[in-house]
This record gives sequence, C-alpha cells and structure tokens, in this order.
Amino acid sequence: MLPTFLADDRIELAAACDPRRAAREQFARDFQAPVFEDIDALAAQSGLDALYIASPHQFHAAHTRVAAAHGKHVLVEKPMAITLPECDDMVRACATAGVHLIVGHCHSFDTPYLLARKLIDAGGLGRVRMIQALNYTDFLYRPRRPEELQTEAGGGVVFSQAAHQVDVVRLLAGSRATRVRAVMGRWDPARPTEGAYTALLWFEDGAFASLAYSGYGRFDSDEWCGWTGEMGNPKDPQAYGQARRRLASVASAEDEARLKAEGTYGGPAWKPPAPGTAAPAHQHFGPVIVSCEHGDLRPLPDALCIYGNNRRERIELPAPAVPRFEVIDELVDAVLHGAKPLHDGPWARATLEICLALLTSAQEGRDVELRHQVALRE
Amino acid sequence: MLPTFLADDRIELAAACDPRRAAREQFARDFQAPVFEDIDALAAQSGLDALYIASPHQFHAAHTRVAAAHGKHVLVEKPMAITLPECDDMVRACATAGVHLIVGHCHSFDTPYLLARKLIDAGGLGRVRMIQALNYTDFLYRPRRPEELQTEAGGGVVFSQAAHQVDVVRLLAGSRATRVRAVMGRWDPARPTEGAYTALLWFEDGAFASLAYSGYGRFDSDEWCGWTGEMGNPKDPQAYGQARRRLASVASAEDEARLKAEGTYGGPAWKPPAPGTAAPAHQHFGPVIVSCEHGDLRPLPDALCIYGNNRRERIELPAPAVPRFEVIDELVDAVLHGAKPLHDGPWARATLEICLALLTSAQEGRDVELRHQVALRE
Repeated sequence: MLPTFLADDRIELAAACDPRRAAREQFARDFQAPVFEDIDALAAQSGLDALYIASPHQFHAAHTRVAAAHGKHVLVEKPMAITLPECDDMVRACATAGVHLIVGHCHSFDTPYLLARKLIDAGGLGRVRMIQALNYTDFLYRPRRPEELQTEAGGGVVFSQAAHQVDVVRLLAGSRATRVRAVMGRWDPARPTEGAYTALLWFEDGAFASLAYSGYGRFDSDEWCGWTGEMGNPKDPQAYGQARRRLASVASAEDEARLKAEGTYGGPAWKPPAPGTAAPAHQHFGPVIVSCEHGDLRPLPDALCIYGNNRRERIELPAPAVPRFEVIDELVDAVLHGAKPLHDGPWARATLEICLALLTSAQEGRDVELRHQVALRE
Repeated sequence: MLPTFLADDRIELAAACDPRRAAREQFARDFQAPVFEDIDALAAQSGLDALYIASPHQFHAAHTRVAAAHGKHVLVEKPMAITLPECDDMVRACATAGVHLIVGHCHSFDTPYLLARKLIDAGGLGRVRMIQALNYTDFLYRPRRPEELQTEAGGGVVFSQAAHQVDVVRLLAGSRATRVRAVMGRWDPARPTEGAYTALLWFEDGAFASLAYSGYGRFDSDEWCGWTGEMGNPKDPQAYGQARRRLASVASAEDEARLKAEGTYGGPAWKPPAPGTAAPAHQHFGPVIVSCEHGDLRPLPDALCIYGNNRRERIELPAPAVPRFEVIDELVDAVLHGAKPLHDGPWARATLEICLALLTSAQEGRDVELRHQVALRE
C-alpha cells in the first residue's frame, strides 16, 4: 500500500511500528515520524485517525483489537483473519469502540469491478446469472515465510488468493452466497499447501459462479488481460518461469524467508516506489466474465467490455493517478464522513467464510452451506 | 462432414438417403450415385462399407440399428443418442452384427487435443490434475428446428455442445469420470432450453475439471483462441451479434426451421464447399487448459503450448489439408484394419451419461455418480 499512501494526498503517514529494526529506521528516515517496536505503543499515540494493519494473517485479529481499544479506525489487509471467531472478535471490538473496520486492499476495490457492479445496478442488463473467474499466476513460487506454505497457519492460495477472487465474485454477484463446492490441488510436495482450486458458488437469487485458480507458475492468464499484470503494469511474456528460477537459488526455508524479508520495506533489496511511475492500467485479479440476463460484462485492466444482444461496447478506463485510490476513498468516506464502508467486517467475514468453506468442501467431498453471508449494501 | 468426404480420397460417397427431395436430387447430381427416401433401402444396398448417420439426434439409435442389421459399419454423429438405453441398443446391435460403431465428428477428434493426449501419455508432465474448459458461442441463436430448443427432445446446449466439451475433457483426463455437479442457465424465455452451464467433474485418479459454456452470443471466447472460429477459420471480431440479427428477421418457429433447412445440403441457400479452401487452422472447442503435475498444456487451433517448470514451448501445428481427417483415420483403421476405435459406442455412451448427469445434477441440486464410464483405451 506504500505507493498509494505516498501518492494520495489524503493520507499522512504519521507513525509506524515494525518488529524489524531496519524497517523502523527506514520509516523514521522517510517520514520523520515516530516508530515503535510493537502495536500497543503505536496505538497509544494520539493524533492518529486510523491504523493500517499489514502484519501476517495470523496477527490481524490481535492487532485490530489493540487498534480498536485505543479508538483508532482500522484498515486491515485481507484475509481479514484465518478463523471466523477471530472475525467476530474484530467486528465486536470495532463496534464497541465505535471505529470503522475496513478490510483491504483487496481486488474487489479495483475500479473495473466497481464499475461493472455500477452498470449492473443500473438495471439494463438484468440480473446476474453466471460468473466465470479464473486466474493462473506464479503465486506459489514467490518467496514465502514458512507459515505461508502451511494451510493451518493461513498459508496457501485459498487464504491469500481466493480471498481476492471470492470478494470480486461476491461484489459482482451482489446477492448472498448460499453454498459452495470445491476441489483443491496440492501438486508440489516441496510447497505442501493448496496451489490450485476449482469451485462452484451458488447465490440466493439463482446466480452461480465458477472460480478457478492455479498458482503453479505455468500458464499465465494475464495473457487474457492484455498482458497486464496484477498491479496494472505491462508484463513481459518472455520472462517465463522467473519466480521458479529465482527460488531455485534458495537453499532452505530460512534463506527463503530471508529473501522475502530482504525485499520488504527497509530490507537491503527493497526498492522505494519511484514517484511519478503510476501503472498504466488498473490492478486486476484475472479474467472474469459476468453473464447477465441481457448481456455479458468483462472487466479488464484498461476497459470494461459490455456485450449486449446487438452490440458490443468497450468503455476505456483511464489509468488511475494513484494506485488503489479506491481504498482511500472508502477509508476517507468512512472516517471523515461516517459512510458505511462496503468492505466492512461483516462483508470480509463472509468472504473468509467462503474461503474456509472451500477448504472444508474439498476435504470432505461435499457441499458446504454458508451461514454468515451478507448481500451487497446490506 | 461433406468437406471431409470430398477432400479425403479414402472416402467414396456411393449412395445416400434423405427424406428431402431437394437433397436427394443434389446428391444424385453431385455424385451420380443412387439415392433413397429412407435408410432401410439405403442400408440394403450392397457395396457399401459404412453408413454415415447425420440424422437428428432422436433418430440415431433407430438408424444405427438398421445399418447394423444390414452389416454396415456405422459412423454416427454426436450425441450418440438422447438416452442411455438407446446407446445400449446401438452397442448391442453393432456387436451382434460384428460391425464397428464410431461416434463423430466430435471435437475430441481434433489434432490439438489428440496431440496433447499423446504428450501426456509420454509421461514427462506427470499426471493430469486439473482441467479448465470453457466456451462462449452464439449456439442458441443459430437457426433451429423446434425440437432443438426442447431439452426432452435432445435440444439445448447440453446434448449438442457439452457432448463436445465433455468428450474433449475425458480424452485429456484419460481416467474414468466418477461424479459430476452442474448448474444450468436458461435465460431467454424465447429459447426455452439450456443455453449455459457450469460443471465440476471428478475423475478416478484424483483429477478434476471445470466445464463452462454459454451459447447466448455475447462474449466470444474465440478471442482466447486467436480469433479462430470453431471450424478453424479466422473470425471477424467486428461481426458482433450476427446470429441474433439474422434470427431477428425470422417471424415464427416454422420460418426458423425453414431457414435452417434452406441452408442445408440441397437447400436453396446451400453453398457447396469450395474445393481447395481448407481452413488455415485446426477445428477447436474453446479455450482449454490442462494442468499436470509438472506442467500445463494449452491446445490451440494452430499450436500446442507447453508450460513447463522452467520453459515454455509452442509446437506449431500445420493446418490439416483435409478437415476432420482424424475421423476418417479412425474409420479406416477400424473398417479396413480392424483396429478398435477410440470413439466407439462405450466411449460415446459414457459422454452421454455425463451430459444426462449434468441435467440431473442441476435439476436436483446434487452430485450425480457415474456408472457407465470407461477410461481411455479401456
């Protein structure tokens, strides 16, 4: 989120905490602002409107509780948490403290999807009936901490990637999800967590969706998004196999975790975002086709394609000046104007419920009924 | 199949039957060969090796029985029939008569899929684990006879289109399918049959597949096949909505059936295949991605893409001189050399079982276990 915070003048980074000394030093240098080793000290600071929590998944719940206890609004990374009771805690803590809880960034904030939803709301296309969403990436071969390869610790593609895809599909469907059926792929013994899945998702209003994902770094579905990568940048089709090759030079899990840490904020391999180099297109999460009663929609990184009965239209989408500005829109609307965020706790809990249900469904070979779902703007 | 029969010198069209007088007259003119009003008279002719049965779905079983009773080998169009007892009859009749039964053309005969299967058989990619197959066409808006819009008469996209997709996926998976789960879309009250579906398919060896189809003439997935149409010809992306527009000029179901008949062999709008105008690419049935343990495969109309762990390879596939020559290969191998065909009765019955199971699963909202499946080369 740093490129967003730097580029969006509604945000001031006023303090930070990080257990890594290098990150704290970098932040103090970059922002001439106080830094702390732990979140309790940070949250106790006055003059902060909101805390952005980007700790590993397993700490989201505890860190959100701390922030809320100190009356700070919360923007927490997805997945909201790794269990539903944690989500309940987070929702309760924020409600009790009277602070907003927003979960993101998540790709359902991306303008092409939000615009597709607006167009559906306008009514001309009729009800959403079928959604196909797929994404083929190299997720599993990016450098990881050990727990990111352990499902029970929130690792694997379900917690990190289905969290995006499910959220995008829920946004587009609009209706409450009722039931899920899934199958998981765990094909690499050296990365012993889910690397792929296929799922069917049913909605209350009769719509249905198919979600497919592979993080095994082979076919790359960005080819079907004009070779635009997840972050909105052009992708070189010739750079095949880069993630795997890079990882092949790593000797151990410790080395890999170090490689990841070195590339993060303040690490020796970390590169600060170059100012003025905004991506030429919107961020995205793979090819998505929404079939409505009277037409199909295809959100793309640079356009929204509308396939009507008689004519096809392509609405060009200018590149955003600030990446992920949509997250700041929602945060500002909530914190300053009291608007109920779309990506609030109950919304994000519903996405986590589906992610957990994907795992249960695959494990037990059966449908899983959903009990904590909310519809759009409920 | 006429372009194939004309271009493949292993085939001689020696007689024909058709209830339509115009078709009979055309055939007699074109081939100086005897014509008949019904199949009994045709099948009684001596000097014929095989009968090609391209009657509407609901006649396949009866016509196959007639052919077999006269000792003629049978090439029957897909779907094999519209019920499993019909399939059983057909298999029995041909076995009793000692004639071969081949079901096709079907897109699982297409060289890119057959080559992908060969590559899987070679073993370097490991086992097939996940298949994604999708196809977005204008199937529902092509001119139809009334029964083609009635599911119970074999109409809709399941009998005519899933028959291809399921067969392709079974070929690629190799293993015996065990179970299916599906959802159907019927979104146009004026075309009251299935126009779309999404399905999950499980296989005995642990592989799984997702199949998706829409025939509603909106998004066109040939965009993901290099704008090559189903028949291997280049497709004009600008000709959007053609099928719907053409149909809009039709006043009634009778007019529509007439429109369809007029475009078929001998009809006033029928155009004979121009010799020497073979398609520049192979036929296909939409985007398909096969994920194996050690790599992905993507069969395309002009290439087979192999995505390995470290490198990507694109095997260019020269255009076939004779369209669907693969069907004649299999027919000749069986009829002249006694080879067991891949697309025989039990194979095609297994595909029909899955098609029927898709309908049942969607209707009853549950998994359907499969009981008549065969693996590849069983």
